Amino acid sequence: MKTQVGIIGAGPAGLMLSHLLHLEGIESVILECRTREEIESTIRAGVLEQGTVDLMNEAGVGDRMMREGHLHHGIELQYSGIRQRVNMHELTGGKSIMVYPQHEVIKDLVAARLEARGEIIFGVSDVGLHDVETNSPRITFLKDGAEMELACDFIAGCDGYHGPSRQMIPASVRNEKKQIYPFGWLGVLAKTPIANPELIYANHDRGFALISQRTPEIQRHYLQVDPTEDIANWSDDRIWSELKARVETDGWELPDGPIIQKNIVSMRSFVCEPMQYGRLFIAGDAAHIVPPTGAKGLNLAMADVQVLKRGITAFYQSGDMNWLNHYSEVALRRIWKAQRFSYWMTTMLHTNFNHTSFERSVQLSELDYVTSSRAALTSLSENYIGLPFEWEKERSLQI
Amino acid sequence: MKTQVGIIGAGPAGLMLSHLLHLEGIESVILECRTREEIESTIRAGVLEQGTVDLMNEAGVGDRMMREGHLHHGIELQYSGIRQRVNMHELTGGKSIMVYPQHEVIKDLVAARLEARGEIIFGVSDVGLHDVETNSPRITFLKDGAEMELACDFIAGCDGYHGPSRQMIPASVRNEKKQIYPFGWLGVLAKTPIANPELIYANHDRGFALISQRTPEIQRHYLQVDPTEDIANWSDDRIWSELKARVETDGWELPDGPIIQKNIVSMRSFVCEPMQYGRLFIAGDAAHIVPPTGAKGLNLAMADVQVLKRGITAFYQSGDMNWLNHYSEVALRRIWKAQRFSYWMTTMLHTNFNHTSFERSVQLSELDYVTSSRAALTSLSENYIGLPFEWEKERSLQI
Repeated sequence: MKTQVGIIGAGPAGLMLSHLLHLEGIESVILECRTREEIESTIRAGVLEQGTVDLMNEAGVGDRMMREGHLHHGIELQYSGIRQRVNMHELTGGKSIMVYPQHEVIKDLVAARLEARGEIIFGVSDVGLHDVETNSPRITFLKDGAEMELACDFIAGCDGYHGPSRQMIPASVRNEKKQIYPFGWLGVLAKTPIANPELIYANHDRGFALISQRTPEIQRHYLQVDPTEDIANWSDDRIWSELKARVETDGWELPDGPIIQKNIVSMRSFVCEPMQYGRLFIAGDAAHIVPPTGAKGLNLAMADVQVLKRGITAFYQSGDMNWLNHYSEVALRRIWKAQRFSYWMTTMLHTNFNHTSFERSVQLSELDYVTSSRAALTSLSENYIGLPFEWEKERSLQI
Repeated sequence: MKTQVGIIGAGPAGLMLSHLLHLEGIESVILECRTREEIESTIRAGVLEQGTVDLMNEAGVGDRMMREGHLHHGIELQYSGIRQRVNMHELTGGKSIMVYPQHEVIKDLVAARLEARGEIIFGVSDVGLHDVETNSPRITFLKDGAEMELACDFIAGCDGYHGPSRQMIPASVRNEKKQIYPFGWLGVLAKTPIANPELIYANHDRGFALISQRTPEIQRHYLQVDPTEDIANWSDDRIWSELKARVETDGWELPDGPIIQKNIVSMRSFVCEPMQYGRLFIAGDAAHIVPPTGAKGLNLAMADVQVLKRGITAFYQSGDMNWLNHYSEVALRRIWKAQRFSYWMTTMLHTNFNHTSFERSVQLSELDYVTSSRAALTSLSENYIGLPFEWEKERSLQI
């Protein structure tokens, strides 16, 4: 088999890249280890930045999102029993976020790719990357027991944190930077009415809690727990009583109901530098992980592939590798800003039980300051909604 | 001896409080361990917030400051060899800072107190506080070998971190919160021309440096060093070569010259809660210490005594202790915001040699974000220039 761009991974990064390349008339093939059913049903993030919403619409895959997603103009911040709305729409000059689950984005992108006769090969295994430092890289894999090979001009490694792509960057040039947090998130899907029209981020002495929404009947909430906690210790009753203790305020009750799914995830930050090696480019979770507090994971993946698509398009238009050779530098500048924001939101909102009383007081004072300063609220909002792309500035600076 | 308010300490807090009370027709006596010459010559901070400048002027002690001080409309931030001006004047709607050394403020306040026949007893020792939980507290002390006693209605403990006042708050109600930083500041006074019209805060792999100004002939600069460093290891040559390595940029050279004073100070944050016990009120360094990076120490002392003066004035006008009983709560809200800012500036600008590469990258990204976002620059500026007083808001919230 032969294509222009071999894409490993049918997550948001791989699918959107394939779709964007298609719109530019560039061919790609996506290889995915899981089945279509699996990728279309795995519960993940659910907050799209304004820029991601715009991208979905401009790329012609935003119709269902605009119909079924929930446009939010703000979030609520809670600490010391006080809840305050952050009017992000007003603070950012009219921008918004869209609450629309990641697996719905994936369904829309898979449908668009298949409708355009794009090739997605599901259920592959033993994926291997070869000759990435040459102009003729190859991907080998097994499909239904048969050994296959995909020859291409470029490989896009969109295969997540555990995929093989990142490992192809030799250890001598690969710099992996990471941070582990002493926090885990216990996430639940529950059959209850919507608790609040907007997300509630609550700091509490007992730990952080996040109230969010999925559909009118099913909601997604999170509790900070120790990352080593066993989910078996968390009965539905215990989860509800802990959520209520952390988020209920005078006169505001959290509706409860049957919990239909629950799990615990640990939190970490991770960045791989650089994101290019020869003709291999990594994007999304393959290159970076953020803690979920800033809702940046999916959005960063979408930003990466926009930079990558520009580079690939420039190459096929003029043979110029200059844009592609700056992919890593341009993408990383945005990635580090998102890492900073995610780190800040995480440390501001979670309760660190190892903190001194000084550190806890500084944290509460940060919440006091942020919620009382228009400048600080604007800074929070512009990051949450998504910092603007600065393509031309990047271009003049670096190319 | 008898007075209305016994003030321990002739630093900025004690002197300004005495002066403000005098303007309200309230009597006070200041007790000071050191001589007038000592307090008028000790080199300390030198950046006055807009609110401190306004206070000096409104209190009629700002004439020399306005003539001899240097009004600055901004600062410069430097990292990765790039220097960027922060136009604080424009970002805060016309506010400024005044570079005017603390010992000059002290000279002006001492002169004003003595001219108004205010009593400052210098060179006292063995200061003891008594009966602070009653309505008739007393201060005992030695002066020229004689045992003396000052009876008063209130005691203001403005006697710094090492003074006896704070210790009178019983350990059972006293909550001291602190943070030690792995940073020291090597400060120099040097005979050189002014290096730059505004302060330069420079982050560098080798450590933080700060370029500031005193007079047209004498400048004050600082170098981050290990707090356990011996000043004997720092020759003038080594100091200049280290300063140059950290702050010089292409085409910009730091002028050098004879160093006339040098010393190393360690950095810490400290807050004592509460700041009242009975008829004792502590203010300034007696209650809190900030690392010098945010230039908040002197300014917080000036803010404390404005809250305290209002409370004491309210008491003498109506016998109402309500304002005084909220002194601690109102003052601490501002103090914690200044602690947060000082902590943030310190951690953003200093190089922590124990940091992981992830933490160092987040720090550089914070500098990249802060210097590229108008909202973040406004937040930095409003804190550096001094957050507005919110007396009426505090009053309606808490009293």
